[in-house]
Amino acid sequence: MEVVKRTRMSPEDRRAQLLELGARMLAERPLEQISVEEIADQAGVSRGLLFHYFASKHDFHLAIVRHAGADMLVHTEPDPALEPIEMLRTAVAAYVDYVSDNRNTYVSLLRGSASGDEEMREEFERTRAAMADRIIAYLPRVGITPDARAALAVRGWIAFVEEATISWLRDARITREELIDLHVAALPAVTLGASAAAALLQ
Amino acid sequence: MEVVKRTRMSPEDRRAQLLELGARMLAERPLEQISVEEIADQAGVSRGLLFHYFASKHDFHLAIVRHAGADMLVHTEPDPALEPIEMLRTAVAAYVDYVSDNRNTYVSLLRGSASGDEEMREEFERTRAAMADRIIAYLPRVGITPDARAALAVRGWIAFVEEATISWLRDARITREELIDLHVAALPAVTLGASAAAALLQ
Repeated sequence: MEVVKRTRMSPEDRRAQLLELGARMLAERPLEQISVEEIADQAGVSRGLLFHYFASKHDFHLAIVRHAGADMLVHTEPDPALEPIEMLRTAVAAYVDYVSDNRNTYVSLLRGSASGDEEMREEFERTRAAMADRIIAYLPRVGITPDARAALAVRGWIAFVEEATISWLRDARITREELIDLHVAALPAVTLGASAAAALLQ
Repeated sequence: MEVVKRTRMSPEDRRAQLLELGARMLAERPLEQISVEEIADQAGVSRGLLFHYFASKHDFHLAIVRHAGADMLVHTEPDPALEPIEMLRTAVAAYVDYVSDNRNTYVSLLRGSASGDEEMREEFERTRAAMADRIIAYLPRVGITPDARAALAVRGWIAFVEEATISWLRDARITREELIDLHVAALPAVTLGASAAAALLQ
């Protein structure tokens, strides 16, 4: 085990360090195997100090998941200087690359036993809601009214992207570019829905 | 508690009866609260006999979930005598009505703690795979080649339908008809994707 010298840190820095260590460990093993003792050892602090920042092991795990969600949102932040479709493509590409780089974390969180925990699911929901809000704010720029139907389509699209990306990570039978195209084309397709698909539906 | 006379049943009928009682109880409470004792009492059999059919409580719960999945598939069976889009609409309407009628079961299974159990997730996956196979088999009838990209789009569409339907069951801000339209329009939209959405992407 790596021995780390005990250093003085501000509470904010210490908290961030503990979460960072937790998030790094999450890339290697499922959440339920992340031990508070190991993280405390790696940070060179006592188990008691860790529980000063996080009330329980479960709270620590929730905070790691929140940290991972926030990290994903930062990495996929859309660039408002781009044209709408280019902005969407860039954000989707960043998402695909981010989850490819963090596939263990991503797949084990969303499809692992964490998904059976209500508070964990609420964390995932918060991340998805933040993604949905971003997209809904962008709809008027492509001429789509962000009404109740569009909001539901956006929620569905996020589930579409999540599922298709996880399937692709498990068995990539199309290229990264093709996957990005699939996601990008699907958003206007589902939010416009009736009109874009009208030709076929006639 | 209802008293049921012990009757002789064939093993198949008895097994079906136990599953049926389990599925009915699932409409009223989460899976983890389904007690083997209560089911055995309702069926008028001993706990021991129930364990003759299902090796453990967990096995019994898995069998209930499999039974619920099969029941949903039967209720949403497409009618091949219909025109393709009408066939899709009828199947989607049957799905929306089925999950509306069984909303407690459906939402608690897919978004409850059962989703944290690996064998449960495998059951859900089997049901989704059966839905996907049905749809993939139908794609050539609407002129879509069922290649790897289309297969991924179909998996994504199933997640889309599931998520949008669950959101709608929780907070119905559009009508049943509008939800069905959203789902129906989304399938050709995502599987055709690039071409249907081409106009906007240019």
